[in-house]
Amino acid sequence: MKRKGCEGVKIPLGFKAAAVYAGITPASRKKPDLAVWYSHKPCAVAAVFTKNKVQAAPVRVSRQHVMKGCARALLINRGNANAATGPAGLRDAWRSARMLASRISADPHEVLLASTGVIGERLDMAAMDRGIRRAADHLKKNMTDPQDFARAASAIMTTDTFPKTTFGTFSVLGKPVTIWGCAKGAGMIHPDMATMLAVFLTDAKLFARDARTLLRGVVDKSFNRISVDGDTSTNDSVFLMANGCSKAPALAPGRPAWPLFTRTLSAMAEELAVMIVSDGEGAQHTITIDVEKARTPGDALAIARTVAVSPLVKTAVYGRDPNWGRILAAVGRAHVPIRPDRIDIYIGRVAVCSRGTYRRFDERAVKNILKGKNVNIRIVLHQGTSSSRFWTCDLTEKYIKINAEYRT
Amino acid sequence: MKRKGCEGVKIPLGFKAAAVYAGITPASRKKPDLAVWYSHKPCAVAAVFTKNKVQAAPVRVSRQHVMKGCARALLINRGNANAATGPAGLRDAWRSARMLASRISADPHEVLLASTGVIGERLDMAAMDRGIRRAADHLKKNMTDPQDFARAASAIMTTDTFPKTTFGTFSVLGKPVTIWGCAKGAGMIHPDMATMLAVFLTDAKLFARDARTLLRGVVDKSFNRISVDGDTSTNDSVFLMANGCSKAPALAPGRPAWPLFTRTLSAMAEELAVMIVSDGEGAQHTITIDVEKARTPGDALAIARTVAVSPLVKTAVYGRDPNWGRILAAVGRAHVPIRPDRIDIYIGRVAVCSRGTYRRFDERAVKNILKGKNVNIRIVLHQGTSSSRFWTCDLTEKYIKINAEYRT
Repeated sequence: MKRKGCEGVKIPLGFKAAAVYAGITPASRKKPDLAVWYSHKPCAVAAVFTKNKVQAAPVRVSRQHVMKGCARALLINRGNANAATGPAGLRDAWRSARMLASRISADPHEVLLASTGVIGERLDMAAMDRGIRRAADHLKKNMTDPQDFARAASAIMTTDTFPKTTFGTFSVLGKPVTIWGCAKGAGMIHPDMATMLAVFLTDAKLFARDARTLLRGVVDKSFNRISVDGDTSTNDSVFLMANGCSKAPALAPGRPAWPLFTRTLSAMAEELAVMIVSDGEGAQHTITIDVEKARTPGDALAIARTVAVSPLVKTAVYGRDPNWGRILAAVGRAHVPIRPDRIDIYIGRVAVCSRGTYRRFDERAVKNILKGKNVNIRIVLHQGTSSSRFWTCDLTEKYIKINAEYRT
Repeated sequence: MKRKGCEGVKIPLGFKAAAVYAGITPASRKKPDLAVWYSHKPCAVAAVFTKNKVQAAPVRVSRQHVMKGCARALLINRGNANAATGPAGLRDAWRSARMLASRISADPHEVLLASTGVIGERLDMAAMDRGIRRAADHLKKNMTDPQDFARAASAIMTTDTFPKTTFGTFSVLGKPVTIWGCAKGAGMIHPDMATMLAVFLTDAKLFARDARTLLRGVVDKSFNRISVDGDTSTNDSVFLMANGCSKAPALAPGRPAWPLFTRTLSAMAEELAVMIVSDGEGAQHTITIDVEKARTPGDALAIARTVAVSPLVKTAVYGRDPNWGRILAAVGRAHVPIRPDRIDIYIGRVAVCSRGTYRRFDERAVKNILKGKNVNIRIVLHQGTSSSRFWTCDLTEKYIKINAEYRT
């Protein structure tokens, strides 16, 4: 799997992208605020949506469209989440889908939607109309261009400081298969995938049923294993669109190339998830929490998650303070039966706690580790064989500043 | 119930207090770091402890002592939590209890313990010995003095910016009964009562069994309804000691004065709990979350708690931003079945969201409400008859600063 930057980026066959300024966000900067990804052939489609009971209009519409199992385009705007907008917001979402469908000669139910931005305000439909028209024009006039995909990834950013894209390509019986992906999300990231959007496009031939099962598993081990602030949004969505334009034979569980495809997609999702964490609002550190030798995988995950969301652990890392007591205290409140007197804790490679209690360690060495951008906290429980990993970032004054000032 | 300030403060009969500098904290300031509360008659005792699986040594020792149902003194130190200190820490705790017991001619199991401060470091037993000796001397030489109780409340503070005390007095068949209480805790406060200590002393005559049931109920509606940062500590303890020195008849459920006693204690606990929140690390606002017309009390509480711990809601209040979308999004992720299209949200008296969607409101009026120290967020679900209240504070840059720098 290779990294972003447009040189050498592979785009799956049969897809195009457009990013335009529609006017949903203030006009001062005129940065693109609307993106469309388009396939000239119908795609098998799968999606995972937020579990928040308050679901944005685009989520409700996309959920219905995805159930039909076939899509042609994905339309995402930033600046307005179209959430908590009632029946009128739902009508706006339907209308956006119809607008785009009519311009690309597709059925409205072949258009998927996502929105991100402020909650509780109506979408500016004149701006949406303008943006959709411009995007459709761009798609008609232009060939597939990796630059368009990069711009589309930028067009969906809110408080993100950099666009997050990835791609993977491999061959099946000599025929290339490509996956391209992007994500957005900086604050409000949590298990259940808060204010987080991700898109995967592939020219592989997949059955919608397999895509669904696969995507659910992939999301569970990537986007559901990250946390920035524990808040979960109304708009989270991860999409997978497979148009089958590759000459490789159809991929399905049990066939030879399936593990390769699933592992590539997993690795890409994990990469995007870690990028999101590393771009957490105000974050200076990316923290990887490894819990090992737990009784059950569920125990390991619960502990990893509790440590990851602890503000005291996150501020300690920010303050470069090897305060393992806060880590141990977080382990203790994960509502998991544990024997505290068996727990070892490592920061980087340095053991800072043995059998649940203090051990002499080189504080300077640990402070040096905490100066690095990436910090690994490893918690070895010695009470079983299960392990789990979780990613988070530190909590800084800047997070507060960003979120106290956003919108006002 | 009257408020703090030493003038007019009533102390329950038969109790004394001492606050001394033992040397557990750095010598630069020489502020008291060890407190003892003492009763010349044995007390019926009840306590509620942290649910964290990692339990500090003083919690483990006190739990055993409380089970015997009878106590004479409570010893609290700050500067060191004596948590994650293994068997040696447990021995230090036992030894502290024995030291104090021998000086006040009590049984070691009549001494209760609590500690607050850094995790994972051994107690300085020479300092403890010195402090206990000084405290015992003070108790011997002095009469009951409200100043001592105020100083003791200060001696247990960590990042608290003010001591938190309260008292209540009422008469039963013409005989006065008094309750005095104090608490500490600023960060790491959460349901399950994190890094939070509270002490209630009363001269009422109670049975230990009744005291236990009562205290559990009281804690559940006060200290378990507050949150500063969602972290829960290894050392939380709430103690109730009743020495029966009042001339009033014994109080017990079913007897006439019982409701008066329980309501007074509840109100005092609520007052201390709200004081803790208002002193939340870096906090500028005290936020009261009221959830009304929920299907069940459990639903109401889950929603109130989820809103209370949302960093996005807390930073919005800090930023004086009437961002009700974040409140609604938090309601949606409380894992409670709700109908979003019925929800009304009020900030102060202003309706900011009706039936789950935007309604016109006077933004300036709401901003003015958000300028005040106390902010009430009322969420009316219109799907049942249950309600619940929860207290929290806003999240500010100062919280980060305090916790990034604490210890180092």
